[in-house]
Amino acid sequence: MGEFELIQQFFTRPTPRAVLGVGDDCALLQPAPGMQLAISSDMLVSGRHFFADADPYALGHKALAVNLSDLAACGAKPLAFTLALALPAADPAWLEPFAKGMLALADAHGCELIGGDTTKGPLNICITVFGEVPPRQALLRSGARAGDDIYVSGTLGDARLALQARLEKLNLADATMKSACQHMDMPTARLELGLALRGIATAAADVSDGLLGDLGHILERSGVGATIYTDMVQGLMHNAEAACAAGQDVLAFVLAGGDDYELVFTAAPEQRAAVGAASKNSNTIVTRIGHIDALAGTNTSLRLIASDGSALPNRFTSFDHFST
Amino acid sequence: MGEFELIQQFFTRPTPRAVLGVGDDCALLQPAPGMQLAISSDMLVSGRHFFADADPYALGHKALAVNLSDLAACGAKPLAFTLALALPAADPAWLEPFAKGMLALADAHGCELIGGDTTKGPLNICITVFGEVPPRQALLRSGARAGDDIYVSGTLGDARLALQARLEKLNLADATMKSACQHMDMPTARLELGLALRGIATAAADVSDGLLGDLGHILERSGVGATIYTDMVQGLMHNAEAACAAGQDVLAFVLAGGDDYELVFTAAPEQRAAVGAASKNSNTIVTRIGHIDALAGTNTSLRLIASDGSALPNRFTSFDHFST
Repeated sequence: MGEFELIQQFFTRPTPRAVLGVGDDCALLQPAPGMQLAISSDMLVSGRHFFADADPYALGHKALAVNLSDLAACGAKPLAFTLALALPAADPAWLEPFAKGMLALADAHGCELIGGDTTKGPLNICITVFGEVPPRQALLRSGARAGDDIYVSGTLGDARLALQARLEKLNLADATMKSACQHMDMPTARLELGLALRGIATAAADVSDGLLGDLGHILERSGVGATIYTDMVQGLMHNAEAACAAGQDVLAFVLAGGDDYELVFTAAPEQRAAVGAASKNSNTIVTRIGHIDALAGTNTSLRLIASDGSALPNRFTSFDHFST
Repeated sequence: MGEFELIQQFFTRPTPRAVLGVGDDCALLQPAPGMQLAISSDMLVSGRHFFADADPYALGHKALAVNLSDLAACGAKPLAFTLALALPAADPAWLEPFAKGMLALADAHGCELIGGDTTKGPLNICITVFGEVPPRQALLRSGARAGDDIYVSGTLGDARLALQARLEKLNLADATMKSACQHMDMPTARLELGLALRGIATAAADVSDGLLGDLGHILERSGVGATIYTDMVQGLMHNAEAACAAGQDVLAFVLAGGDDYELVFTAAPEQRAAVGAASKNSNTIVTRIGHIDALAGTNTSLRLIASDGSALPNRFTSFDHFST
C-alpha cells in the first residue's frame, strides 16, 4: 500500500464545513465572522505515550481526545484537525481500526479531518486541533483570583492505576483492570463542560500531567497560590478501593496521576450555583477541592490540608518528559 | 534541562499578532475579517527526511521552510505556526541553533511560533503552519485547464545531487558540493512568488517529491494531461555540468529529484506577461516547461517530448514513503 493510497483509503473524507480538505498543498478553513481560533498540538510517541502494541482503535480515539481536551480547557468548540503520522509500515490491519477510532470521536464532535502528512518512521502521531471561541471568552490559565474556588471534573488517578498494572507494578482483579484501562485508553475530553464554563470559570487547564502539576500552571500564570483539601479529593478516584487493597497511596494517584484529561478550573464563590448548572447541563460531575490564595512573600504557592486541618508536605511531582 | 524550561528558553516568544502564544492549553488566533485560513502540516523524521547528524541550524530552517512552501503553493501569506518536537534528549547545544535557524526564517516572514508540544522520543519535527488568503484566491491543484502553460520556479535537482553525494553514490568537487548542499539544507519557500501569482495562476503545487510527481497531483485533481519539453527543463539544474561530469542523468535529477521546494504552476497563455511580472516582482526565476492537454480516452496523461520532437518514456517515479 502506497502513501497516497493510504491517505485516500483511510483519511480522505468529506469536509462540509471546511472550504477545502485533504488533497491539496493546504487545507482551507473559513472561520466564522469575528470568532477566534483556538489551536493546540499534541504529539504521541510509541513507547512513551502508549505501548507499541496498544489497541489501534483506542489509540486513534485517545490521540484525538487528548487534543480535544486542550480545546475543552479553553472553552472552544471543535472545528477541524490535521493528522501527521509516522508509521513503521503501511499496514491496513492497523490503519483501519486506528482511523475508525479517531474518526468516530471526530464525528461525535463535528471535528473535520482537513489535512496532514504521512511518512515512514518510528510510530508517532501528531495532531493539531482547531476550535472556535468568541473574543475574550476563552478560558485561560491566567485568570484565577484570590478567593476563587477550585474545581476538578470527573475522576482522577484511574489511568495511572491502569498504567501501574500494565507495568506489572501491582495486581488488579479483572473488573477493576477493565475499568481502569477504560480511563487510560478511552479518555473523554470535557468539551461540553468547557463550553458551559464560558463566562463562569476564571481560569482552566486540562489535567494531563497530574492535578497538582496542571493546577500549578494556573497558579504560575495567574500569580496566585492555592489550598487543596485532601479529604475533598480523596474520593475522586473511581477505583480507590481497589488501589487501597493493592497497597497503593490513593492520594498520589489522584494528585499526580497523569493521563486524566479532566478539567481543573477556578470560579468565584458567587458562581457556585452557575458551576452546578454547568455541571448538570454538560452531564459532567464537578467537585470543589479548595480555593485560590493570594501569594504572600515567600509562602509556598500550593498548600495541602488534611482532614484534621494539618498541612501535608507536597511530595507530588508533575510529569516532565525530560526528567523522567 | 526540563520540558518547561526548554520551552521557556528556546520556544517562548512575543506574538504581537496572535491573541495568545505559547503557555496555555491553546493558542488563540484572530483571523483578519473575511480571510480564509490556509493550513498545512509536515512531519520530518530523523534518518528519513534528514541525516541524524544534520546541522541543527539548517534543520530548523528547513523544517519550517518545507511547511512555508505549502503556503507558497496556495498563495497564502504566513501568519503563525505550531511546533511539535520529539527529542532523544533536551540538549541545549542542539536546541539553541535549531531554534535560531527556525526562528530566523519565521521572523523573515512574520510567521509567529504560537504553540506546540515537546516530548522525549526518536527525533521528529512536526510543524503546522497557518497562512491567510482572501476567499477564492487560493491557488489550488484543481484549476489547470487544457491549453494552460506550465511553469516551474527556480532550479531543480540540486538537492538530489547533494543527497547522492552524501550517500557516497557520486563524488563532487568541493565548490559543487557546497552549492548542492545549500539547495538541500537551506531551501527557499517561494512565498513572494505564490502571493504574486494570485489571480494569475490557474493551479499550483510545491515540488517536494519530484517535478513530475507533483505536477501529476495537479493533473489528477484537474482532470487533465500535460506535455513537458525536456529541452525546456534540462537547464533547470544549477549544478548540471557537475552532474554530467559525474556521469549522472541530469533529466532524472530535474524531473524526479525531490526536496526542491520550488513551485510548479499553470496559467493561461494570455497571462505570459503577467507571469513575467510576477516573476520579476517576486525576484524569482520562472521557466515555462510545457502545456496542459485535454485528457483523451486512454492516452497517458503526461507526455515528455525531446528536442527532436520524439516522445520519451516516462521512467521517472515520484517519491513515496511506503514504497521506497
